[in-house]
Amino acid sequence: MQALGPRARPPRPSAPRWPQAAPPPAPGARPGTRPALCSARGRAMESCDLNDPVMEDRPIVTSKQKIEVVCGVPTQVVCTAFSSHIFVVVTQYGKMGTLVSLEPSTVANDICKPAITTRVLLGQDEPLIHVFAKNLVTFVSQEAGNKPILLALALKDKSVEGVRALKEVIRSCQVW
Amino acid sequence: MQALGPRARPPRPSAPRWPQAAPPPAPGARPGTRPALCSARGRAMESCDLNDPVMEDRPIVTSKQKIEVVCGVPTQVVCTAFSSHIFVVVTQYGKMGTLVSLEPSTVANDICKPAITTRVLLGQDEPLIHVFAKNLVTFVSQEAGNKPILLALALKDKSVEGVRALKEVIRSCQVW
Repeated sequence: MQALGPRARPPRPSAPRWPQAAPPPAPGARPGTRPALCSARGRAMESCDLNDPVMEDRPIVTSKQKIEVVCGVPTQVVCTAFSSHIFVVVTQYGKMGTLVSLEPSTVANDICKPAITTRVLLGQDEPLIHVFAKNLVTFVSQEAGNKPILLALALKDKSVEGVRALKEVIRSCQVW
Repeated sequence: MQALGPRARPPRPSAPRWPQAAPPPAPGARPGTRPALCSARGRAMESCDLNDPVMEDRPIVTSKQKIEVVCGVPTQVVCTAFSSHIFVVVTQYGKMGTLVSLEPSTVANDICKPAITTRVLLGQDEPLIHVFAKNLVTFVSQEAGNKPILLALALKDKSVEGVRALKEVIRSCQVW
């Protein structure tokens, strides 16, 4: 961070910050638009209006991430909200680790919350990974209106304390 | 955007921006550190040194994303570099779409580049999805030193032009 210390020069009152002049538009372009990708004989240019707020740089999927030291282990958590799924990455190795799909079943169990079915899609299918996956992200599925979750999990610290702390980091990346 | 117009007051030279005072450290905390997550009886605090550059807020995995209008279709591309995989999201629906794993085989094919094996992990397993997946991200695997790719693909525009343009958006999100 660069702080403006006592020896730094104060901003000159005679130099107000003007908005930067925009480059001249390309011939034929409507003001405020920019060329869309695709060279398909003007098709993209015709159908693409970037003044439309839907087409502006608004993300189609939203994502939040945190980098934290969890129980002494540097950890990165990324949560991404697709309309169909929530994708949660928890990595303490930098690897993608095991990829687990968690699907809430349509049949409610005895406490009236849908049971979650876990399936390992990539990586080693060990009993513990199902336990960790359910513990970490069942609450995400429930809070997101029983959306299925895709979880990429590379855990170094598998303690109960660690998992509890990780849940808080996931919660702080709430995109659902 | 708020522009500083001619009628706006120029910044006062007598008011330099000082860095905000930090809150007082917790008892026993070393200066410059902050408490790590985890309440495991001080274990985290002991092993966690945030002055260590490895443990600072440096991402463990890096990610780049682009939101573009590709052939008239709003598109979001996110590329994430794990040490084990490159994860590529291409969505034109906001859905996660089909999840495809692309693994370069260890046996080189006749032009001495490893062949790529595609496998649908989630979603509909249709022949065309394998074609699109290979077309879109084989170059990513090759450029990343034959790393396996995980691709989440929700395509609206399946034209050859569209796929060609998408490859350029993926290339602009290079994290490998």
